Amino acid sequence: MTIFKASQSQPLDVVGIGNAIVDVIVRADESFLKKYCLKKGSMSLLNEKQADELYRSIGPGVESSGGSAANTLSSIAQLGGKAGFIGRVRNDQLGEIFTHDISSVGAIYNTPPATKGPSTARCIIFVTPDAQRTMCTYLGASVLLEPEDLDLSMVSESKVLYLEGYLWDNPAAKSAFIAAAKASKESGGQVALSLSDAFCVDRHRKSFLELIENHIDILFANESEICSLHQLNSFEKAVEETKNKCKVAALTYGEKGSVIISKDHELVINSYNFGDAIDTTGAGDLYAGGFLYGYTNGEDLLTCGKIGSICAGKIVTQFGPRSQSSLKDSLNSYLD
Amino acid sequence: MTIFKASQSQPLDVVGIGNAIVDVIVRADESFLKKYCLKKGSMSLLNEKQADELYRSIGPGVESSGGSAANTLSSIAQLGGKAGFIGRVRNDQLGEIFTHDISSVGAIYNTPPATKGPSTARCIIFVTPDAQRTMCTYLGASVLLEPEDLDLSMVSESKVLYLEGYLWDNPAAKSAFIAAAKASKESGGQVALSLSDAFCVDRHRKSFLELIENHIDILFANESEICSLHQLNSFEKAVEETKNKCKVAALTYGEKGSVIISKDHELVINSYNFGDAIDTTGAGDLYAGGFLYGYTNGEDLLTCGKIGSICAGKIVTQFGPRSQSSLKDSLNSYLD
Repeated sequence: MTIFKASQSQPLDVVGIGNAIVDVIVRADESFLKKYCLKKGSMSLLNEKQADELYRSIGPGVESSGGSAANTLSSIAQLGGKAGFIGRVRNDQLGEIFTHDISSVGAIYNTPPATKGPSTARCIIFVTPDAQRTMCTYLGASVLLEPEDLDLSMVSESKVLYLEGYLWDNPAAKSAFIAAAKASKESGGQVALSLSDAFCVDRHRKSFLELIENHIDILFANESEICSLHQLNSFEKAVEETKNKCKVAALTYGEKGSVIISKDHELVINSYNFGDAIDTTGAGDLYAGGFLYGYTNGEDLLTCGKIGSICAGKIVTQFGPRSQSSLKDSLNSYLD
Repeated sequence: MTIFKASQSQPLDVVGIGNAIVDVIVRADESFLKKYCLKKGSMSLLNEKQADELYRSIGPGVESSGGSAANTLSSIAQLGGKAGFIGRVRNDQLGEIFTHDISSVGAIYNTPPATKGPSTARCIIFVTPDAQRTMCTYLGASVLLEPEDLDLSMVSESKVLYLEGYLWDNPAAKSAFIAAAKASKESGGQVALSLSDAFCVDRHRKSFLELIENHIDILFANESEICSLHQLNSFEKAVEETKNKCKVAALTYGEKGSVIISKDHELVINSYNFGDAIDTTGAGDLYAGGFLYGYTNGEDLLTCGKIGSICAGKIVTQFGPRSQSSLKDSLNSYLD
């Protein structure tokens, strides 16, 4: 089943809008999370002072470009898709690293850096021995994304516009994201949303439900996010509740795999295991990246889900959310 | 055999002087090294323009604090030793990361950052599929280390002063390092030198031979470095040639292990294998760190060599030269 036909007038497969973030990845044990009252698997927002204090309290880290949508778009580019990213860094060293990393995989990234104000956003990611990640984000320059930065011509020329739920933590720009969604739809594009995290859903539930109903074609969520959205405590019930809410929903449930719901059918896709999971950071982002790479290149939903699962399976075997090995090679080796 | 007795007047076990560097670690294949004329295993020096050009040509990286002596001193602190580091960063984001990472493991690091001039030093490390590393270093602010930055009171109060061979690439400061070595000796301390890399030895052979003869108690070198020093093509001959050149020499030869030469005997120590080697960056640095931790805590040379081998064996199973897991736990588990 081919669900998307390529058109000459749409030079990009996917354009994503998200927070432009550099991750600081550190190992931590459960007692550390407890001491700092961090809920495992969550993302907490910090102000600059809190971020500085937390950084002082932690051990040595490893830095890597991150940001949910940026991870997704990077993986689409690494797979060979045409990807663009819109998000704001500051003109500082972390901003240069972010810009280098996303550009070097071939994604188009033109948002001019802020020349004053807060520094490039950072996210301290605590990886516990069970490979789960708990995040503390200082949004820094990323909230300086203004409506005029949303290059609507780039949006209009893309097959899919991808929004990360975390954007809703930036209230000033919310209406601009909805305007971008409208621009995408008007030019025949589709709009995808990732719910980002269960606590983010909790912060913006009503707004997300309206957004999904009115603007979203493709919804990405994991088990806890979709349960939080519908305020249900069972994944099966949440799957039922999601039916008919949008054209396609791809719902992941950890190592068990994913369920893809479309108008006329439901597909269950197993996860791929490429060795020990050492850090689940980016698993959902790369699932979405793989899925959308397939989707915008005319693959059927089953294949889209498999590509997503392969990318997610690969990223959890390394530290950090940007793939250090070739995703394209993985696809060639494992996609039947 | 206890070779060092702790003294109340020496509050630090080891103080190290080195280039303060942040690593950018990227995967590369052999053809990439060939294209850029990089000799595998070597360290090349770049100016800022060359460093920027090279960075633009590479894929996404992972950033981690590095620097040979800084890696060694960090590992000593992580093992529970009292460690100090002297080296210069700029007051920029990479400098803050370097300062955080070395301080957070408990090493004393007080060198004030440069407030103008070149940015914090960076080293692009290409890791090939065989886990070998090839390095391109932009020394940046690290060469701004002035003789007056060498806190001689800290040096005098340390059991061992540790110098990295790479320091010799900074001609202006060479005499200051020799002055530091003299200060250490005068107060009853010992002076250790790591030869850093075979090409560095090639650049400074005569100077190193004089230094070893006149100032060095403990010499660290790997196979290619010690062969380069003596211009011999066999490790066995180089081991012979090294005898009686200094009090102790600890010579590593990759996965085969190490040979420790002292006045009255020679010890062969096997390497430790904790799983697949994915990146050999820091292996020599952590061998030296483990060895010196043992040495300054009264262990015999056999135990020193084993601690060095355990630390080196651990670091090659992860990406980057700063340990993300507890070296102390490894020691407790594997040191018989």
